[in-house]
Amino acid sequence: MNKLYLVSIGPGALDLITPRACEALRKCEIIIGHQLYLDLIQTLIPDKEQIASPWGKEIERVDLAINKVKEGHNVSLISSGDIGVYALGGLALERLGENNLEINYEIIPGITSANACASILGAPLSHDFLTLSLSDLLVPKETILERAEAAGKGGFVSVLYNVQSPKRQELVYQVMEKFRPHRSPQTPCGVVSNAFRPDEKSQILTFENLFSMQFDMLTTIILGNDATKIVRNRLVTQRGYSFKNETE
Amino acid sequence: MNKLYLVSIGPGALDLITPRACEALRKCEIIIGHQLYLDLIQTLIPDKEQIASPWGKEIERVDLAINKVKEGHNVSLISSGDIGVYALGGLALERLGENNLEINYEIIPGITSANACASILGAPLSHDFLTLSLSDLLVPKETILERAEAAGKGGFVSVLYNVQSPKRQELVYQVMEKFRPHRSPQTPCGVVSNAFRPDEKSQILTFENLFSMQFDMLTTIILGNDATKIVRNRLVTQRGYSFKNETE
Repeated sequence: MNKLYLVSIGPGALDLITPRACEALRKCEIIIGHQLYLDLIQTLIPDKEQIASPWGKEIERVDLAINKVKEGHNVSLISSGDIGVYALGGLALERLGENNLEINYEIIPGITSANACASILGAPLSHDFLTLSLSDLLVPKETILERAEAAGKGGFVSVLYNVQSPKRQELVYQVMEKFRPHRSPQTPCGVVSNAFRPDEKSQILTFENLFSMQFDMLTTIILGNDATKIVRNRLVTQRGYSFKNETE
Repeated sequence: MNKLYLVSIGPGALDLITPRACEALRKCEIIIGHQLYLDLIQTLIPDKEQIASPWGKEIERVDLAINKVKEGHNVSLISSGDIGVYALGGLALERLGENNLEINYEIIPGITSANACASILGAPLSHDFLTLSLSDLLVPKETILERAEAAGKGGFVSVLYNVQSPKRQELVYQVMEKFRPHRSPQTPCGVVSNAFRPDEKSQILTFENLFSMQFDMLTTIILGNDATKIVRNRLVTQRGYSFKNETE
């Protein structure tokens, strides 16, 4: 029976794509995804039908994938990072459910952007952390700010996605203001763009420094907490081992 | 020059280990990790020196790995999931820093337990989420409860790690009580044990149901939020596409 594969391709480097994801791509006649994602895996799918779909056409992209399976094909719908995190995994399940379609599917997990960026910076996500998207296209701005406040108060190391777009310049600073009462200005933080891709850039700096920076939609910010420190130019969040060691 | 590889082996299935991780293992003469992790990748390292280390001996495990590199070996220190998440990545960087050691190292990210469990349940982490460890060995119980309160209030889908041990029976229920003011009793949630391992078990149930269950240290709980629903026996957190579609 034909199958819809919901395939996570990880941050972008070919050797960070799992064999299970590669095998799914191999089994399919049609690969559907944003052109940026198709480009990342081009060498894996030279002989496949490829259908690029623009940003913002998520429902159409999912429905197209489902329809191609109904027509008798094996289809991979791909996403960078993990297809279950800020991507199309959930929407695909919803569309299958709404249309009560008996289609075989499989979700293949991958390395999310949060983990990829963290590994470049050091180990800032060693303990409790959260991810917060700053895109207000699908979520009211008020909800984003409320979550930022809870995140700050809870002391979670926080990974900010979709931090700034040409149309949405101010929200990232407003979000970081919510953290201010709960973070020292010297709290170590990190900024990563294009993790594991040709234009990768990363920087470690203080919470305070972030307020004078410009970002873009491909930038991820990791805000440390009071257990985060800089160890030889790397960002590390302590889990308490040092403390434990001292008291043993 | 010799190198310390901090290697994430993902949830456990061999085809969810990245080629970059496999290549690191191949380059090393010595593989160090908990026996459970060594067992998971046994077929990849039959000819390697393997050093198993018990739980709770984290500093010793890291220092041993560093010393073996200093002695002239390439060494992999391995962890299931992502070595940067509730694992030894941060501690390794700290120990290198404390001893001011000029040792080459590389952190190889992997698929975390949160993402692995989510993919089994459906797509509960489609939007903002957090992870919270309930282990009180390294963190005061009060901090865990404060974070649970912030997590509940912020409406984050929440992944609970290390939920219950023989000695720590009550904390998981106390943590979930912190979510109660912010979650309907019918909120869909998921429970996964041994994701992608031979004894994998998973269950989708309501928030209310969780309070009458027993768990263990290998169980992960995913608490949905008000955008989480059940679609054909799968857990899905909506990102707002349906809403957007209706209003277009």
